[in-house]
This record gives sequence, C-alpha cells and structure tokens, in this order.
Amino acid sequence: MTVKTNIKRLLQYRFCLSRLKELGFTKVFSYTLSEEAGVSPEQVRKDFSQFGIKGNKKAGYDIDTLIITLDNIFISTEPQNVILVGMGNIGKALSQYKGFKQGNMNIIAAFDMDPSKQVKSFGIPVYPVELIPEIVEKHKVQVAIIAVPALSAQYTCDNLIINGIKGIMNFAPVILKVPKGVIVNNVNLSNELQSIVHCVAKKIKCS
Amino acid sequence: MTVKTNIKRLLQYRFCLSRLKELGFTKVFSYTLSEEAGVSPEQVRKDFSQFGIKGNKKAGYDIDTLIITLDNIFISTEPQNVILVGMGNIGKALSQYKGFKQGNMNIIAAFDMDPSKQVKSFGIPVYPVELIPEIVEKHKVQVAIIAVPALSAQYTCDNLIINGIKGIMNFAPVILKVPKGVIVNNVNLSNELQSIVHCVAKKIKCS
Repeated sequence: MTVKTNIKRLLQYRFCLSRLKELGFTKVFSYTLSEEAGVSPEQVRKDFSQFGIKGNKKAGYDIDTLIITLDNIFISTEPQNVILVGMGNIGKALSQYKGFKQGNMNIIAAFDMDPSKQVKSFGIPVYPVELIPEIVEKHKVQVAIIAVPALSAQYTCDNLIINGIKGIMNFAPVILKVPKGVIVNNVNLSNELQSIVHCVAKKIKCS
Repeated sequence: MTVKTNIKRLLQYRFCLSRLKELGFTKVFSYTLSEEAGVSPEQVRKDFSQFGIKGNKKAGYDIDTLIITLDNIFISTEPQNVILVGMGNIGKALSQYKGFKQGNMNIIAAFDMDPSKQVKSFGIPVYPVELIPEIVEKHKVQVAIIAVPALSAQYTCDNLIINGIKGIMNFAPVILKVPKGVIVNNVNLSNELQSIVHCVAKKIKCS
C-alpha cells in the first residue's frame, strides 16, 4: 500500500498554515491556501470537507482553529517512535533531520551491519541489525526508515515486517514488495531529479 | 510549476524494467509491470500510448526495446550538469548519491555560505554562493538542488532563477514560489514520514 495523496495534501496545508501564521495572518481563504500549496481552491475545500472541516465563505477559515483541527488529525499527543536502518550518507543525514522532531516523530535507534558504525551518532544509538526485534518490541515501534543499499533493501524490509513494523519510508532505489496492511512510501531521489532535468531539457510544460 | 505525475510514473516503469532485465526477463506484460510499479495495468497502457509506445497483446512488450525507448525520452546523451546549494547533512549526502550519476546527471559543484565548508567534498568542489552566476554560466547549468535551511531557501531560489536556473529540487521545508516557466519539486521529508506514521497510528486504509 502507498499513502493516499489527500493525506499528503492535508499535511501540506498544515505546513502552509504555520507559515501564514508566522507572517501574522489570522484568517485564510481557500484560494490563498490553495495558492500556497499549489493546488486548486476546489481541491482545498473538497479535502477539508472530507475531513469534516468547515469554513465560512465570507470570513474564510480561522488559522488557529484549522491548525488545531489538523494537528488533532495528524500529530499524536505521544511521540511516535521510529527506527532507521542503514547509516550510510543518507541514513546519517536523516538521523539528524530536525523536521521529524517537530512533527513529534522520534528516531529512537538506528541499525547498521557495519560494526564501525555501531556507535552513538549525534545522540542516536546505532545497534547491530540483530537487535531489531528487541528494540522494536521494547519501544513499541511501528514505523521504520530504510536507507540501506539496493541489494539488501528487500531483505531488510521483510525482516522489519516479521518483527512487527507496519509502515516503511524507503530511500533505497528499489520498489519494495510488502504484504497487505503494510504501508510503504518509496522515495526515489534519482527519479525526482530526473523528472526535473527532463522537463527543463525538453522545454516542455510539465505542470 | 510542479512535475507531472505521468512523467514520474514513466521513470518508475524504467526503473522496474532494469530490475526485470537483471532477473533475466526479456518480455513483460503491462500487468506485470503495473504490479512492479504499484499502479493499474490500464494506467501503464495509457501512459505508454501517450508517449507512442506500442505493445503486443499476446507477446507483451520487449524489455530491451522499452528500455531504449524510455531512455531516448528521458536520458540525455550528454551528462546534465546540476549544482547543489547548501552543504549541511542532507546536502552532503546528496552530493555523494550514486543514483544521480546512473541517470547521467552530474553534480558539478556545490555552494555554501560557510567558509569552513568551502573545500572539495568527496570530489565535488564547494564554492562560496557568490560564485553561482559564474559557475552556472560556465557549465550551462539549468537545474539546481536546494538543501539550505528554511529561512534562506526562498532567497536562494530567487538568486538561482535570476542566474538562469530553470528547474529546482527543493529539500528545504518551505514551499518555494517560482515564476511561470520554472519547475520546482518540493521534497518534504517530514510530511512523507508523517503520512506513514498517521496511517499506521490510525490503522486506516491509506492506499
């Protein structure tokens, strides 16, 4: 399973609302938010109505109320424990990524096969992969980030799922196969860049 | 402008085809490819027909021919020069990301405001940001990756565009505003992870 795009859009709106609030706004119209988020105003209204969020046509939406409503939907009151497998360049960068903490997501442990990487890295303990079952159980972890090389990604994924992981963010350049009920989000950095290069090189309208 | 999803899907198919070829396959049916790529077989056929790619209902598509056709569409014969602004953790990891080179995309230079980072980093020269105009012009660069902190992202973006950049892959947690004709791909790592955490925590069907 992959993540529904409407959920990603709502998170995008939430992100834009913080920015508008910082800029001093207290109210927002669907067209302003749509412009910020790069979608149509109809899409904003449709997404909000799907989640039971109501606005006032003349006065717009109250930003504080919207933020609280979206946070109630998305941000859990308790920090969500996440583990990270693979402490190469991408893994190391992700282990220090501040944005996760702001969303109440905590990378509580990292894992790597290489003993030389099994030290505390910027506050996060790095364990041998054999300890995955123990840590997952102890900290009730349900979500993992995979940042291992392509060749070991599917094995890593299978191992995580056997040990109870239900959601995976995958940075390995492989499309992972997961059983029903497990959510996977494949982030293919190369394809993301290639799509831009393509549109620019061919001078085609890509939006 | 953001990148059309059909282009991202075609790059995904290309990616799956390499994998199938490695596994020894020479022919592929749209339903096999659709399963690999996580879309419907109708979607595969629709995308292919939009780009003038024809298959044989009984025999399927020839993998080698498909790869050549897609590479003709996407991979330029000449390496595409890309620059990277911001040599923090994410920037450093991206500067060493091998997947870009495989798609004939070369990060030829990186830039950072911090003089202590202005050294050669893993084979890539790191210059002060003041040199962006010179390097962009000299190497005919049209695409840039932004990996600076949120606060300086829009300024960096504006500066790149003034100097001729037409496509941007943005890792800063900000939605960049770009003029018409410039393509931007905002990669929000926090939202990507949050969407998975949300689906898992609420135990909702997210696909």
